[in-house]
Amino acid sequence: MPATVPSSRADAADPVEILRALIRCPSVTPEEGGALAYLDALLSAAGFATHRVTLTGPDTPDVQNLYARFGTRGPNLCFAGHTDVVPPGNAAHWRFPPFEGAIQDGLIYGRGAVDMKGGVAAFIAAGLDFAATHGPGGKGERPGSISFLLTGDEEGPAINGTEKLLRWLADRDERIDHCVLGEPSSRAALGDMVKIGRRGSLSGTLTVHGRQGHVGYPHLAENPIPGMVRLLAALKAEPLDGGNAHFQASNLEVVSVDVGNPAFNVIPAEARARFNIRFNDLWTPETLAAEIERRMVAAAGNEVRFALAFEARSSDSFLTAPGEFVDVVVEAVAQATGQRPELSTTGGTSDARFIKDYCPVVEFGLVGTSMHAVDESTPIDEVRALARVYAGTIERYFAVFGR
Amino acid sequence: MPATVPSSRADAADPVEILRALIRCPSVTPEEGGALAYLDALLSAAGFATHRVTLTGPDTPDVQNLYARFGTRGPNLCFAGHTDVVPPGNAAHWRFPPFEGAIQDGLIYGRGAVDMKGGVAAFIAAGLDFAATHGPGGKGERPGSISFLLTGDEEGPAINGTEKLLRWLADRDERIDHCVLGEPSSRAALGDMVKIGRRGSLSGTLTVHGRQGHVGYPHLAENPIPGMVRLLAALKAEPLDGGNAHFQASNLEVVSVDVGNPAFNVIPAEARARFNIRFNDLWTPETLAAEIERRMVAAAGNEVRFALAFEARSSDSFLTAPGEFVDVVVEAVAQATGQRPELSTTGGTSDARFIKDYCPVVEFGLVGTSMHAVDESTPIDEVRALARVYAGTIERYFAVFGR
Repeated sequence: MPATVPSSRADAADPVEILRALIRCPSVTPEEGGALAYLDALLSAAGFATHRVTLTGPDTPDVQNLYARFGTRGPNLCFAGHTDVVPPGNAAHWRFPPFEGAIQDGLIYGRGAVDMKGGVAAFIAAGLDFAATHGPGGKGERPGSISFLLTGDEEGPAINGTEKLLRWLADRDERIDHCVLGEPSSRAALGDMVKIGRRGSLSGTLTVHGRQGHVGYPHLAENPIPGMVRLLAALKAEPLDGGNAHFQASNLEVVSVDVGNPAFNVIPAEARARFNIRFNDLWTPETLAAEIERRMVAAAGNEVRFALAFEARSSDSFLTAPGEFVDVVVEAVAQATGQRPELSTTGGTSDARFIKDYCPVVEFGLVGTSMHAVDESTPIDEVRALARVYAGTIERYFAVFGR
Repeated sequence: MPATVPSSRADAADPVEILRALIRCPSVTPEEGGALAYLDALLSAAGFATHRVTLTGPDTPDVQNLYARFGTRGPNLCFAGHTDVVPPGNAAHWRFPPFEGAIQDGLIYGRGAVDMKGGVAAFIAAGLDFAATHGPGGKGERPGSISFLLTGDEEGPAINGTEKLLRWLADRDERIDHCVLGEPSSRAALGDMVKIGRRGSLSGTLTVHGRQGHVGYPHLAENPIPGMVRLLAALKAEPLDGGNAHFQASNLEVVSVDVGNPAFNVIPAEARARFNIRFNDLWTPETLAAEIERRMVAAAGNEVRFALAFEARSSDSFLTAPGEFVDVVVEAVAQATGQRPELSTTGGTSDARFIKDYCPVVEFGLVGTSMHAVDESTPIDEVRALARVYAGTIERYFAVFGR
């Protein structure tokens, strides 16, 4: 049996070694840190066609991205992720240097171990195995293509990353049929949760206008704060909805209230509050903005003068409805981990909000507990199990969708 | 008749000329600007015993003050006021230079014209007339003393001003029996209001504690803002009192609410609100603080974690009850202006809050409308009428209280 055809896990690409190499690249957004160059070399050598794409924007740093594809036929199963990481903070607070990839007691430590170089290493390993199996020395006919969409701008402004890279691909008629995003999706144990959608996000600012004056003469002034208190109470008075089969209830959080009056004897002219809503598919950003406006108008009556402004960058909710593609991932998870994952749409936003405009997308990855924290770490066994989930996903995917 | 004995207003000290001279002294707090030196010279020449007192404190600028007394016998009727002024702002916005004392169409313009060099000029003129009448060339036996207590720190921190000057006098066994504070007290027309007391002032800060977290996972965080909204609503839900015969109702104003969270996707850890209460003599700072604490505890229940802190510098309310001394001022106002003044305790605090600890104090002065504003100005007729009010006050005072 030729050495290029892996006959067992011992011969297969080792996701832990890939992860270790990735952790050693200090790829804090927007720095590439050597991470994409390393993967480019690895994938090119394995027969992938790779594209390094530097994306630029007027007010944001240039960011490097990588797209790599093995095979030319459809369907094209894409694994998406990012190699950029959040800053480590004070490295002295870490048990091990954050860009070293130290292993102790079965855990690998380092910034990005969980979010999400671990996921990247796992799907790269699965992809390398697929390429080895179906490459020149492998067993011949390919059932379709697999690809990797890797950005260096997920933890940053996310402007010169996935969103533009997808457009770049579309402009070149490069089609992705289904996508697995490798973000940490598991809650307590690897395999307990697959994300099949995400809530949308809408942010806004509420301003209440008053008239400045001296505290001793309140009748000559108009304090905006009682009006703000009234509007904020009304914002949260009624639930937005009760959720539905796939989504929890939409939720509004007031994240800041600011007046900035340094004096005790002055009634301020204005008060501002900022809020964010995570909403399910019962709403669009437009219908939700209209509902908030309606509530504020009702609560304000003729007494409170206010202005409402919504941020331009909102994101819609999305759902990849349970069905053949979700089943492919769920069965691969169940086989590799022994867990039947919950299908969830909880949590924050992810780059899936961009991908869903191009193809069905599902998220599955490591347990997220230590992400962004000091001593970020993940069990090396779970990285290997995750690589098996992705390998199983590829196998089942082509069994169902392959030509 | 000797020339030193004024026989008519033509011979009397002219308050408008004194005011003009004072306006020309740029005495923006804490600068003396020549104002006290000018008055010192004027009063010394007229037979007053004068004391220039520089008061100092650890964290505040040194401030010059002046105490001048004519006569040695009691009772001692003191006129109190300040020669410092607030900054003029951009002088280019003024019709006339703010430190020139220009007169046009019967109005004298300048920073401090109303607050309160106009009042100072008026009582100095009345005092010079009294000294001329009762001086060496005058009609002999003096019915008591008159004095001036002038500070250069009323518009600033008010630490090295009236409060310390009163203590300085007390330390020297210098007794003041009654005091007229010449702050602008009239509302729409000279003589329509005399202030016989002031509300107290108490300031505090309310902090609501939460737990920081990601907006997408509100169950893992604890947003302090809904709790703050609840406590602020409870702060204003019930009136503190209904006022009484001499005082309007106590009033609380929330003057600032601040969270300072720049992100839309982060639930903040803490929210702070600052408030000020102007309260009547149904409360002391202590009973009021206890009531606020009680309301907050009741509103918070077990759900809202909060902290309440009160500023050390509060001021108590005070009332100079209607009676002989108030009548002296009221009758002098009525005679000189044709108005029967309302007896009021409205508005902000003044240096009367310090004086009331030593003797009964009443406030009467010009119409305050233009104070602290660009083009601060007052009719010269009203400055002259105010001087007649003070002269009448002196005359009636000694008729009632003189020995």
